[in-house]
Amino acid sequence: MRAVDVVQKKRDGGELTPEEIDFFIGGYARGDIPDYQASAFTMAVYFKGMAPAEIVALTESMMRTGEVLDLSDLPGPKVDKHSTGGVGDKTSLVLAPLAAACGVYVPMISGRGLGHTGGTLDKLESIPGFNVRLSLTQLRAVLRDCGLGLIGQTPEIAPADRKLYSLRDVTATVESLPLISASIMSKKMAEGIDALVLDVKCGDGAFLRGRDEARALAQTMLGIGKGMGKRVAALITDMDQPLGRTAGNALEVAECVETLKGRGPTDLESLSVELAAWMVHLGGAAASLDAARARVREALASGAGLERFRRVIELQGGNPRVCDDPTLLPQARETVVVRSERDGRVARLAARAIGHAGMLLGAGRETLDGAIDPSVGFVFHKKVGDPVAVGEPIVTVHVGKASRREEALARLREAILVAPEAPPRSPLILDILS
Amino acid sequence: MRAVDVVQKKRDGGELTPEEIDFFIGGYARGDIPDYQASAFTMAVYFKGMAPAEIVALTESMMRTGEVLDLSDLPGPKVDKHSTGGVGDKTSLVLAPLAAACGVYVPMISGRGLGHTGGTLDKLESIPGFNVRLSLTQLRAVLRDCGLGLIGQTPEIAPADRKLYSLRDVTATVESLPLISASIMSKKMAEGIDALVLDVKCGDGAFLRGRDEARALAQTMLGIGKGMGKRVAALITDMDQPLGRTAGNALEVAECVETLKGRGPTDLESLSVELAAWMVHLGGAAASLDAARARVREALASGAGLERFRRVIELQGGNPRVCDDPTLLPQARETVVVRSERDGRVARLAARAIGHAGMLLGAGRETLDGAIDPSVGFVFHKKVGDPVAVGEPIVTVHVGKASRREEALARLREAILVAPEAPPRSPLILDILS
Repeated sequence: MRAVDVVQKKRDGGELTPEEIDFFIGGYARGDIPDYQASAFTMAVYFKGMAPAEIVALTESMMRTGEVLDLSDLPGPKVDKHSTGGVGDKTSLVLAPLAAACGVYVPMISGRGLGHTGGTLDKLESIPGFNVRLSLTQLRAVLRDCGLGLIGQTPEIAPADRKLYSLRDVTATVESLPLISASIMSKKMAEGIDALVLDVKCGDGAFLRGRDEARALAQTMLGIGKGMGKRVAALITDMDQPLGRTAGNALEVAECVETLKGRGPTDLESLSVELAAWMVHLGGAAASLDAARARVREALASGAGLERFRRVIELQGGNPRVCDDPTLLPQARETVVVRSERDGRVARLAARAIGHAGMLLGAGRETLDGAIDPSVGFVFHKKVGDPVAVGEPIVTVHVGKASRREEALARLREAILVAPEAPPRSPLILDILS
Repeated sequence: MRAVDVVQKKRDGGELTPEEIDFFIGGYARGDIPDYQASAFTMAVYFKGMAPAEIVALTESMMRTGEVLDLSDLPGPKVDKHSTGGVGDKTSLVLAPLAAACGVYVPMISGRGLGHTGGTLDKLESIPGFNVRLSLTQLRAVLRDCGLGLIGQTPEIAPADRKLYSLRDVTATVESLPLISASIMSKKMAEGIDALVLDVKCGDGAFLRGRDEARALAQTMLGIGKGMGKRVAALITDMDQPLGRTAGNALEVAECVETLKGRGPTDLESLSVELAAWMVHLGGAAASLDAARARVREALASGAGLERFRRVIELQGGNPRVCDDPTLLPQARETVVVRSERDGRVARLAARAIGHAGMLLGAGRETLDGAIDPSVGFVFHKKVGDPVAVGEPIVTVHVGKASRREEALARLREAILVAPEAPPRSPLILDILS
């Protein structure tokens, strides 16, 4: 078999066999197939797409270039959630402890924030001492103890994906549904999970703005999961405005703690509960989705979820007292209040622009090696549809020593619209695919 | 400007500016842009094509990565011919001396044979001592003396094309009209010529079998030539059967000498004269195409063409006595005569299979670094349409010590068809575009 023939077959619209895909991906991971053939391949896939069976084979091949966790010794279902990312999207820190409290193991391997969207790892690292760089062996020990573990990518997980993603980034082949789906799923499937819940965001602040595109991505990822013999479901959820009351790493951790105490904002709580319920349901730890919802609500009300969160922080080297005293989290030097200039209703809190403003303040990064300031971010006093009077605070901005502060504040102000009428409130969960 | 943005613009079907193309090609030639971005680019071009202005810019950029000959000190028009290649396609050795004898300078930079097609350099190197590896300075001296010079690619000519072609070969991006056209034209335009005649072959033994494809390639190359301010014309010619009476390097040289003596086969002579006449006409060395034809015929009849050939051989270190005694050319160890097994007419001499049979005997090479045997090849006693009796010779095979001799002979026999009726004779020159 020759790499150039695999490229040509795809270029000509042929359906590659699992053997051809494995030859190519395995060869690329080992360095036998050079970058220039891989980039020609990804460009051919960009134009010609892949059949469902090819996407499954691609995911499996990428997964098998690295380690696949075997968690079969843990006595219970192993389930994870993946979100395509958004602004203020902090459900992982709420739902993972809740699902764990309902008897589901959650081996969560997450990423960092990039561009306007945040990342779970950055949020966790705002907790003093919290170590996301556990080995897979350490992750196993944490999981066994408290039912969840929250770590970053390790070099052992799907190295082909890491290599291919860097290449796609510089060869204009990122925006390919098969490649995006296989990239996400190869890492998730390496976690040794039985089931996966996908939170596919759409709207202004999402990676994919349109609902049809989000649905297509969800369908493709569902196809992969099912093709690999897993139980999967996807929720298509709204990301037009930031989720919850905060965006910014330490602020979001504090909000998650409040939510686990039953004092969180409605949207964050209901989405976290719903996603956790799907995890419990797909994991088989409840007889029905309704029963799963009831169990998750119970774990929330009883404080069992909060206890799991406290425990995982402790096990991963962090200071669990942040759950009692949020001032132990990094605090911004200064706050700036943005107030309404008129009476009316909040008609827009444009998530993407808000995310970019946060990035300019240091809450996120433009490139993967950029530094962030965990203390900065936004607290939203109003959400879309809320009435607001002139002079009333809409957002409190937590500011660090960012040099682009004025640019960020201008960007934020443009993202906010107060008008006589607000658009009709769209539901948070737009669709469910399973 | 970033390379990835140029790739993305082409991927999305945008029309690149000359500046963008020059940034990309220049950067690639210098090594600032890596192979993996260049292969993503060529694959994007494969799918999205290029507008005429882009193809001109691409050709100019590739040309300008190397040296462009300035022959303005030579007192007369500089004109070349390019053929897309075929079996027994030896017109260069006839038309270049003829055109030179008519007052046109022919600075011909040629390639080697690959696969089933032959190459001018290989034919020339069958002349004892003939040196095709002249520097551009040496080429200039030879040209000034005898009006033609016949050399191989030098590292100074269009290095970007060399690099890009090697890359396309291993990334399944060879078959792209803009890339093929720019590759050919960047090298030809670097010769410092005023005009170019294209011989675009179509049929079984051609690179492009279909007439429409050949016409599209011809049109694209004409567009480049005109876009660069040159006079250009293209002849679409038949390559269903080998051209002339021979295929094989030394055999073809001997046939060219015979043709320059006025004793060549009709098809080779008429095509060579027609191409040379176009060169003379486009070069402005004759008032009309008809006048140019008359001048070329006169150069043939007077022996002036042969004298130029004798002189160029001498100037390039070869033994000019091959023009008097063809046995000074490499001679095969053995000949095998293939005879007709029935009465009838020759209905097919399939050029591609004959070319492959020749390659198996050592007349050509499968990879560019393969060795060849200049003595081997075929002499055709019959052409398509000729009557033939049982037992009459159709081909004499000149055989060396090739290990795949039986396979080659079997291939040759399959390529020959004798039938009660021959198909209608198609004209050798199918179309002329200018």
